[in-house]
Amino acid sequence: MSRILRTGATETLARAVEYHGFVFTQGCVARDATLDLRGQVSDVLAQLDELLEQHGTDNTRLLQAQIWLKRIEDRPAMNEIWSAWLPEGAAPARAVVQAELADPRWLVEIMVTACK
Amino acid sequence: MSRILRTGATETLARAVEYHGFVFTQGCVARDATLDLRGQVSDVLAQLDELLEQHGTDNTRLLQAQIWLKRIEDRPAMNEIWSAWLPEGAAPARAVVQAELADPRWLVEIMVTACK
Amino acid sequence: MSRILRTGATETLARAVEYHGFVFTQGCVARDATLDLRGQVSDVLAQLDELLEQHGTDNTRLLQAQIWLKRIEDRPAMNEIWSAWLPEGAAPARAVVQAELADPRWLVEIMVTACK
Repeated sequence: MSRILRTGATETLARAVEYHGFVFTQGCVARDATLDLRGQVSDVLAQLDELLEQHGTDNTRLLQAQIWLKRIEDRPAMNEIWSAWLPEGAAPARAVVQAELADPRWLVEIMVTACK
Repeated sequence: MSRILRTGATETLARAVEYHGFVFTQGCVARDATLDLRGQVSDVLAQLDELLEQHGTDNTRLLQAQIWLKRIEDRPAMNEIWSAWLPEGAAPARAVVQAELADPRWLVEIMVTACK
Repeated sequence: MSRILRTGATETLARAVEYHGFVFTQGCVARDATLDLRGQVSDVLAQLDELLEQHGTDNTRLLQAQIWLKRIEDRPAMNEIWSAWLPEGAAPARAVVQAELADPRWLVEIMVTACK
């Protein structure tokens, strides 16, 4: 039985959970909800970088991502920042759909599965 | 090649699928769609307990969860019951978004990935 | 460290990613967005067949699926085609919710996790 490692665990959620070489993150949202779409995407990706680093991996080892946008028409702008962030040849499988998020000011939420 | 174990399989879906130490559940919804939000969350968590037990694990070994709420403003009430259900230090990575579910009376749907 | 294999990788996403015996697909949508619901579901399932085959597996080894419908009332029609496509006793754990997709003509998007 492999050990489960949890980062940033509260009574509600962990920011990331590692098991058997896989790293599962929470759905990350901007720490500052007043940022515009580009600012929020950048902040979410910075958080993912931190979480992956805390589990000894990085964005070259993403497997699958889910992205929720409050306004699906923000997809091109989100994609620009997303693609610039991804190392070449390291894009994960991905789904992007529209959804209302917990704070009405949040415009994007991203959850990933990565590996070590 | 590890064996795939399926619980409650119909021609459409399995209630849970186990492979290589991982357990993937369906999106569980309340068996009684007339229950209020708190009743539906409790029933969904009871179903998850049963599914995890059938695969030789439990809610101390959750890795990732997705929660859909018909009304995102139900998140605080859902969180209360969710947090009370979770063993201390065992919260999974998680995303909660709003979505219309298959039966208009369903207020919550939860799908988890766990391990043995 | 197992190797990560990516199929159809662009700067934005991979169509499928394989790691450690698991295969994660993108959220697949119809190549022809003018098809009706049944046509779109059939095309998405054909794409999944291709992706799974490219990773040395098939739809007898699905673990978990997420299905987004633009109109949740299309679920029965989607289920008909989905169930006819699935080999007997091979249904994955699954969640189906409503969501607005990137192209307003897209009626269905399906993302799966499978194994080899």
